Amino acid sequence: MLYTSEALEILIDKLSQLPSIGRKTAQRLALFIMKLPKEEVKSLAEALIAVKEKVKNCSICSNFTDEDPCLICSSPKRDPNTICVVEEPNDVIAIEKTNEYNGLYHVLGGSLSPLDGIGPEDLKIRELLQRINESTKEIILALNPNVEGEATTIYLSKLIKPLGVKVTRIARGIPVGGDLEFIDEATLSRAIEGRVQI
Amino acid sequence: MLYTSEALEILIDKLSQLPSIGRKTAQRLALFIMKLPKEEVKSLAEALIAVKEKVKNCSICSNFTDEDPCLICSSPKRDPNTICVVEEPNDVIAIEKTNEYNGLYHVLGGSLSPLDGIGPEDLKIRELLQRINESTKEIILALNPNVEGEATTIYLSKLIKPLGVKVTRIARGIPVGGDLEFIDEATLSRAIEGRVQI
Repeated sequence: MLYTSEALEILIDKLSQLPSIGRKTAQRLALFIMKLPKEEVKSLAEALIAVKEKVKNCSICSNFTDEDPCLICSSPKRDPNTICVVEEPNDVIAIEKTNEYNGLYHVLGGSLSPLDGIGPEDLKIRELLQRINESTKEIILALNPNVEGEATTIYLSKLIKPLGVKVTRIARGIPVGGDLEFIDEATLSRAIEGRVQI
Repeated sequence: MLYTSEALEILIDKLSQLPSIGRKTAQRLALFIMKLPKEEVKSLAEALIAVKEKVKNCSICSNFTDEDPCLICSSPKRDPNTICVVEEPNDVIAIEKTNEYNGLYHVLGGSLSPLDGIGPEDLKIRELLQRINESTKEIILALNPNVEGEATTIYLSKLIKPLGVKVTRIARGIPVGGDLEFIDEATLSRAIEGRVQI
């Protein structure tokens, strides 16, 4: 046994199962936690439990929330006629940080991926279609720019367009601060394709 | 509020206070934890609490341990007449991983650092001196190769040598796999100074 404490070894094991945390980082975290005051460790443990006990999915948009419906869905300040479709709750956070968007969201819970056995019935697609009504102005598809996101975007647009709703997707192009020279051909060709008049 | 859940926000806050975990990583961890089965989150929380409740310092070597004295101090297979002095419990783990050392340890709990207000009385130096007796053969100083570790090494050797015990320090030199060209002058000069006959 490398560690002279079994409890320490268990904690290091558990921490190293988290994403992006290797054995070395887990060891450093565990030894840091050992030195924290008991109350702080307790409140961290309680925060872990609380997140599983209190947080649920919003019955409207499927985003994580403490109260149902979530703060965004129940906010009178948001435009209820625009829905931005994203894959995961972190995508909502990313878009909220831009302060550019004032509509509602719909979290699919992933993207279509036949190789991983994820089909349309595994995503919140039916729930999305049920939210669309006469007053819906626009559905913005903001899925990840990879093969699965692409396939899901095409699939969704084919489903939604017949309902007579405007369907848009977020622009693909060169990232701000990027260097033309180092940008891959696919991105650059999308940027040229999607050029806008100035 | 960026996150539509307060519990999630609290957890992200707590996680981002850990070393080497920034806001983005904390967010990723929290969303990963959200998706874990409830039992696993509970066992992680319990491991956190356990580490604070069960783990104590060994009364002999001050290393972290569940039982006092620790497994190394109480092992009959280890040579009780050689003591390796290190700064922190992770240093014990690092040395144990080499499988090169079969003596006991002594964890100082840091190094002398007047700028941070850490003097001899803040480290387990008195405890170390009390462990030295007639049968003690060698004290190996394995402190970090920085200014504080250096000062502590010199301080300790001055204290221990008068007791008639052999005091050694771990070799400073070029790291295995290192490239002479890119090694700093201080390390290289130590490597030349400490050359051994082949």
